[in-house]
Amino acid sequence: MEGLLPPMSVTANTPPSDRYVVGVDYGTLSGRAVVVRVSDGRELGSAVIDYRHAVIDRHLPGGTAALPPDWALQHPEDWRDVLRRAVPAALAASEVDPADVIGIATDFTACTVLPTLADGTPLCEVDGLAAQPHAWPKLWKHHAAQGQADRINALAAARGEKWAPRYGGKQSSEWEFAKALQVLEEAPEVYERCERWIEAADWIVWELTGAESRNACTAGYKGIHQDGAYPSPEFLAELDPRFADFPATRLEHPDGLAALGSRVGGLSERAAAWTGLPAGIAVAAGNVDAHVTAPAARAVEPGKLLAIMGTSTCHVLNGTLLADVPGICGVVDGGITAGSFGYEAGQSAVGDIFAWWSGLTRRAHEELTAACADQPVGGHGLIALDWMGGNRSILVDHDLSGMIVGLTLATRPEEVYRALLEATAFGTRVIVEAFEAGGVPVEEFVVAGGLKRNSFLMQVYADVLRRPVSVAVSEQAPALGSAIHAAVAAGAYPDVPTAAEVMGAVERAAYVPDAARADAYDVLYAEYRALHDVFGQSGGALHRLRKIRNAALAAAQQDSEKDQDQ
Amino acid sequence: MEGLLPPMSVTANTPPSDRYVVGVDYGTLSGRAVVVRVSDGRELGSAVIDYRHAVIDRHLPGGTAALPPDWALQHPEDWRDVLRRAVPAALAASEVDPADVIGIATDFTACTVLPTLADGTPLCEVDGLAAQPHAWPKLWKHHAAQGQADRINALAAARGEKWAPRYGGKQSSEWEFAKALQVLEEAPEVYERCERWIEAADWIVWELTGAESRNACTAGYKGIHQDGAYPSPEFLAELDPRFADFPATRLEHPDGLAALGSRVGGLSERAAAWTGLPAGIAVAAGNVDAHVTAPAARAVEPGKLLAIMGTSTCHVLNGTLLADVPGICGVVDGGITAGSFGYEAGQSAVGDIFAWWSGLTRRAHEELTAACADQPVGGHGLIALDWMGGNRSILVDHDLSGMIVGLTLATRPEEVYRALLEATAFGTRVIVEAFEAGGVPVEEFVVAGGLKRNSFLMQVYADVLRRPVSVAVSEQAPALGSAIHAAVAAGAYPDVPTAAEVMGAVERAAYVPDAARADAYDVLYAEYRALHDVFGQSGGALHRLRKIRNAALAAAQQDSEKDQDQ
Repeated sequence: MEGLLPPMSVTANTPPSDRYVVGVDYGTLSGRAVVVRVSDGRELGSAVIDYRHAVIDRHLPGGTAALPPDWALQHPEDWRDVLRRAVPAALAASEVDPADVIGIATDFTACTVLPTLADGTPLCEVDGLAAQPHAWPKLWKHHAAQGQADRINALAAARGEKWAPRYGGKQSSEWEFAKALQVLEEAPEVYERCERWIEAADWIVWELTGAESRNACTAGYKGIHQDGAYPSPEFLAELDPRFADFPATRLEHPDGLAALGSRVGGLSERAAAWTGLPAGIAVAAGNVDAHVTAPAARAVEPGKLLAIMGTSTCHVLNGTLLADVPGICGVVDGGITAGSFGYEAGQSAVGDIFAWWSGLTRRAHEELTAACADQPVGGHGLIALDWMGGNRSILVDHDLSGMIVGLTLATRPEEVYRALLEATAFGTRVIVEAFEAGGVPVEEFVVAGGLKRNSFLMQVYADVLRRPVSVAVSEQAPALGSAIHAAVAAGAYPDVPTAAEVMGAVERAAYVPDAARADAYDVLYAEYRALHDVFGQSGGALHRLRKIRNAALAAAQQDSEKDQDQ
Repeated sequence: MEGLLPPMSVTANTPPSDRYVVGVDYGTLSGRAVVVRVSDGRELGSAVIDYRHAVIDRHLPGGTAALPPDWALQHPEDWRDVLRRAVPAALAASEVDPADVIGIATDFTACTVLPTLADGTPLCEVDGLAAQPHAWPKLWKHHAAQGQADRINALAAARGEKWAPRYGGKQSSEWEFAKALQVLEEAPEVYERCERWIEAADWIVWELTGAESRNACTAGYKGIHQDGAYPSPEFLAELDPRFADFPATRLEHPDGLAALGSRVGGLSERAAAWTGLPAGIAVAAGNVDAHVTAPAARAVEPGKLLAIMGTSTCHVLNGTLLADVPGICGVVDGGITAGSFGYEAGQSAVGDIFAWWSGLTRRAHEELTAACADQPVGGHGLIALDWMGGNRSILVDHDLSGMIVGLTLATRPEEVYRALLEATAFGTRVIVEAFEAGGVPVEEFVVAGGLKRNSFLMQVYADVLRRPVSVAVSEQAPALGSAIHAAVAAGAYPDVPTAAEVMGAVERAAYVPDAARADAYDVLYAEYRALHDVFGQSGGALHRLRKIRNAALAAAQQDSEKDQDQ
């Protein structure tokens, strides 16, 4: 096991085996802390807590008014709870002396973003604003800003904004500017009170250090920070005159952007009391759950496409050259590791789709996987489009939806399940082909995240992608990745790639493609791609159905409110 | 209730209140007998038995070899069991003196067809042939003769056969000629032994009377008998020289075709012993479950489209003129009632689709219907194509399959269920529009069959079709329809329409369209129709997926047989 290499003495003073770091990974539904030995990446203790409010998508805490479709919020207090409860629990489980911990680092879902006062107080915690939906943190999968994203994209194309191609030509409705513009337009009074518009990735670091910082990763991928600048006031004024000063007033920070793995401050007394860690230890710059994982899976070299496969999939890939790849999420200088161009792509829903089908059919994942694993490729006669959560890459359109084609009365639940597994692999192949067509080679597919445990799924990916699939060893790779960044921030290693060699671990080519199955999948992929290209068109059937749905539900909601008023 | 009109003394001799008839309805999975009072159509006793072998689609009784995909067979002994067990049970339940029963009539699924010896013995019961799949009766939903149907259709079009437009331009793979040609080509030794190729509708009458007869309905709709003749030997020889004499040797009967409701013989001693009925009573010509139902639902006048909605839907409609309607199943002079042109159309799977989804999601129909009934039209954002069992009208293509479009992670099982209900209504609307475009008016939609009990579904049909929906009163309308034909065969009434006025019953305009919902459904129907026209194309994605599936399963089957041989 590569994770258990003999200790390396790359730093001075204390023997490495006696020093530890803490990585904290903020997921969609839970937060996880892990205590890791600096010398070899060994994970000594961890703890997970579920967010009490999970995803807020029906009504606000304490409220009853229904949130509109596609909204998704979170509660900042749930995030603090992770520091207060999971970190001490992980420390206790590790039996490490807190005095031997030299650093802490965090990673977060992104773009999860919130409006705060100048001192970092979330607006939803400000007196009188708790009942305002727009005062709450918007989770990454808040998909109600598609209209704003569409206008940003149209204007950027019309003006030929130089930053636009860095994002595959399309800003996602998930990102900072679309979400902020939605607040401005739908709740100008909340926008007015917003003094900082900040990624949760940076906000949680602020909670740890007591001082604001901004990391290079989220600023680049989610905040349109390219070549040292945010979009121009002229561009923003064309969207809305009130939006012209948005970066200057709510994003920019006098210290600029912090490199990943850099120390942005010391642990505050307050956070030390919460966590049980020594005050003053290194706190690393904020980071994103996907990007932070690359060193944990030893996937920082160019050509290694890391997929963090869970409820959704994020793809990160280092390249040696700057290329514009249509439909990817973005390319950011130093966005994954300093010194490389970091490329990101993604699939909005992956494990979420499997869970949806498992719930719909009241059958366990294991049962569904096993019942169909022996069927020959194509034996179910099905093709699915995996857009049940929209399409992040390469169509960048959250008004798309999914479909299942080829159903017969003999179609069994496990056959649809397999078709859904395959659809996500086809979706990944579209992304891989976009990278290669754009001049960014993809040689190896490395998987981290919960879905790596489904060996049938992994084999499908190897066959569909016609590439070896390597698997991260850690069961909590993002948290380990954070811990690696904490070790670098604390000075234990000179840089993240060096730390990755020691602290990360991967099982190389755990799955290799089978030629016959790969040939059979090529035929199905051609069908997938044909449906993808037809149904992915703007203004097509899926867009029309979405509009019909939204109008029907809005009218029904109005009727119901009228009834209540009477 | 119109079914309980005061007795009418339309015949002489015995007072009508003292005379009874038996109707026997052969469905897909069970057979039902009902004892009915001639004077008023009152149903006095009934009994149902499930076929012991149900649908034979995996392997032959006593065998283990897998049947190919799309095969569906039945067992003649199951049909005899209905006469031996259900008829006596119905008689007992009715407390009617068997001596007062004056006639019996039957109806059957169609085209359910079998090869027999000259004496009516089914080939599957002939020594040495039981292991031959092609020796068994082919159930209507045996869909493995699509290749033969395609060739029949292509040749008929090329030669401009005059009978072709009577079937909407397309013979179904379900019908007599396609199925017989499949036997000839795949099992010539079985075809050689086949002395009669006969509809189960006529075979069961043979079992009752001891003499062969052929009814006008199945000969017209399923046997290409038009204007007094079957297809010419020249046409058939072009398909296969061995097929040229198929009608002359295996279909034609010296007595010609029997009109519906006519007496074709007396009950034999053997059948009297089976049923407990008096020998010699009138036995009516064979009939089809759909067509026989029209008088029971008082839907024999032109413009009344009767839909028998169960696992599948059959549509029958009388017209005053002979018109060629593309894509319908057929038009037959006297095919429903003598003196009118009877039109037939159908949907291959309707209740079967709902049952499939109910089974897939492990939720009851009632739960699925109720959970979504209050949602506004279009609120689920879904469109389904209802081709899970292929398409009978107007595409006449059993290599098509179904799809569900617009799925999101928020899509609930009851929303898909509702979309499936709606899809079948849209499929019906396509058929109604085809009739009207062809010059056959449709003014009222009359429903019989089990699905009439789902009032939400009935309202959806009224809204989607923008027509009043009337509902047959009888819970066993086909069996009642058979009883009506038995009464006519026994001479109790001069003709079927007259008997229908007395013995049939319908609740007129039980559901009427809601204008707002109908408008909303128009928008969804446009989406359905667009998908219908694209995915219904020959050689499209659905056909390719079917070919991929069949090839994959056949290769796997070969591999598995190779493994067994070794």
